[in-house]
Amino acid sequence: MTRQEKPEILEQGDPAEDAKAFRRTLGQFATGVTAITTATPDGPVGVTANSFSSLSLDPPLVLWSIARTSRSFGAFSEAAHFAISILGENQIDVSQKLSSSSDDKFNGLEWSPGKGGSPVIAGALATLECATETVHDGGDHIILVGRVLHHQRFAGKPLLYAQGQYGVVDEHPAFRTLANAAAPVGDTGPALAEQPLTTLLYLAHHYSSAAFDQHRREENISLAQSRILSELRRRPHLSRTALIGRVYLTEEKVNEALERLAQRAHIETDAQGLVSLTESGHAVAASIRRRVTAYEAEQFAGIPEDKLAITRDVLIRFINGLAHPNETDHAA
Amino acid sequence: MTRQEKPEILEQGDPAEDAKAFRRTLGQFATGVTAITTATPDGPVGVTANSFSSLSLDPPLVLWSIARTSRSFGAFSEAAHFAISILGENQIDVSQKLSSSSDDKFNGLEWSPGKGGSPVIAGALATLECATETVHDGGDHIILVGRVLHHQRFAGKPLLYAQGQYGVVDEHPAFRTLANAAAPVGDTGPALAEQPLTTLLYLAHHYSSAAFDQHRREENISLAQSRILSELRRRPHLSRTALIGRVYLTEEKVNEALERLAQRAHIETDAQGLVSLTESGHAVAASIRRRVTAYEAEQFAGIPEDKLAITRDVLIRFINGLAHPNETDHAA
Repeated sequence: MTRQEKPEILEQGDPAEDAKAFRRTLGQFATGVTAITTATPDGPVGVTANSFSSLSLDPPLVLWSIARTSRSFGAFSEAAHFAISILGENQIDVSQKLSSSSDDKFNGLEWSPGKGGSPVIAGALATLECATETVHDGGDHIILVGRVLHHQRFAGKPLLYAQGQYGVVDEHPAFRTLANAAAPVGDTGPALAEQPLTTLLYLAHHYSSAAFDQHRREENISLAQSRILSELRRRPHLSRTALIGRVYLTEEKVNEALERLAQRAHIETDAQGLVSLTESGHAVAASIRRRVTAYEAEQFAGIPEDKLAITRDVLIRFINGLAHPNETDHAA
Repeated sequence: MTRQEKPEILEQGDPAEDAKAFRRTLGQFATGVTAITTATPDGPVGVTANSFSSLSLDPPLVLWSIARTSRSFGAFSEAAHFAISILGENQIDVSQKLSSSSDDKFNGLEWSPGKGGSPVIAGALATLECATETVHDGGDHIILVGRVLHHQRFAGKPLLYAQGQYGVVDEHPAFRTLANAAAPVGDTGPALAEQPLTTLLYLAHHYSSAAFDQHRREENISLAQSRILSELRRRPHLSRTALIGRVYLTEEKVNEALERLAQRAHIETDAQGLVSLTESGHAVAASIRRRVTAYEAEQFAGIPEDKLAITRDVLIRFINGLAHPNETDHAA
């Protein structure tokens, strides 16, 4: 963990000289995920965007940007209306569909027409039906400013996109009294003993997740690359499409991670376009797996096997109850 | 949990008629947190902003917006350069300082001068040193487009702002094979049994966190309000400043939550400006506490007390090891 320490620099430079490095730096800004749509005479058009930003309360304005090279550029640059649906944490499928290169992105999507007929996505966390207010030049993109005519807010939690992958929001550890404490080991014992079990679960998960980040950095691979290696270790000869479906990253991110892995000769693609691990790829995948095993062995060293078995049993019972709330309700 | 179900609508309407409701809808879009700064003849000026968005790779452009009513509006609308620091998960203090109404926001902040002298914040996850490219009108804000002259990327995870509060990014449950499974209880047992203990911690935490959201909705209060009630329950007669420091929310959010709690007569403010719970406030705070206790009792029902005690003991040992990585390293 990096608390109290200065973070390690990964790369820097002039963005004009290395667009990919610049893109990775921009990816450090976490965002929600939106589906932005409009109606055209040829049917609905939509894209996934994380360039959304609120702009003004009075008048009510929001903005987003679209690449001049996007297939949907023409439709949006001429649209009088568009609808923005802020996606909830269960809507990765919507994000994947609208960011795909499919010709029928709306196939299987549930939506209803909003102002100007723009598709409003069902199940979203919030929706904003807009009239196009202004369009500004923005380099290789244009900035679209929309005046919000109608808004809706729903219960739920947002889908996130951060550092090249989907995520969910977790409570900040600063809210938990203990996570902020800099007290030595002996002193935290009694305070922890007073916490509810659910707080202990939270702290154990958050700290171990942060510790794993460190291990991936030591292997010099991103989480995206790690996930691809692990997937290919179990199932060789996967197509790019199959990989995209399995690792829940955008097409662009999977291609970028595959490119890096290929540069390092960790993967190879056969004549049919199927991807497999090379010998060095197998070595890295195995090394990561060993790190997980060694990490757990080290962290739980000194705790008797039977106590660990009981802990596993309690957690499994807890998860089974929570994963099936309806069944729990019926039993109660 | 709301998986498979349509989310409940909380509010909707014309944003021109209720700016606060519109603001809550906009808050459904999660963002990172940035510190944006510039140099003036009178010293450094800075604000906290979550309106940042990447705009263009070639040329390298980014954008953000600032309210015309901001005290720093004059400095930024005339600035030739500004620096954007994307904050890491340990930098709530930087966010709080730059969003405060203090006259000396940079007191205690560590920074170094970037292009044009704009302060670049130490310990950030990424930094972007910009020359002002264009300024666009944006209703009650202006849009500032910056050309990025130099970028830096550091290791770490981003600080989040979502639904009115700080957060951290957690892995999406879709990445965990089991979280996606719709299998009945009996079937998940063997699959869970094969998972590493750290995966079990993750699933147990994620499911219980989602279940708590439901309880707060049933009490019809936000997490921010819940946190204020809980704080006041332990410590009556707190000033607004003290509350802001204790609940890790922005000044604006605390004021908004206090306003709502006052409307419902859950809190009262005395002549010295100190806030306390009313009788009904005590009742709601106690009710939430009972929900937590009852929730745990129900979820862990049927698991013998001695097994729960062992689980607590294992988790506490695990947390103590992880919370003090240096000590663990020395011991290893």
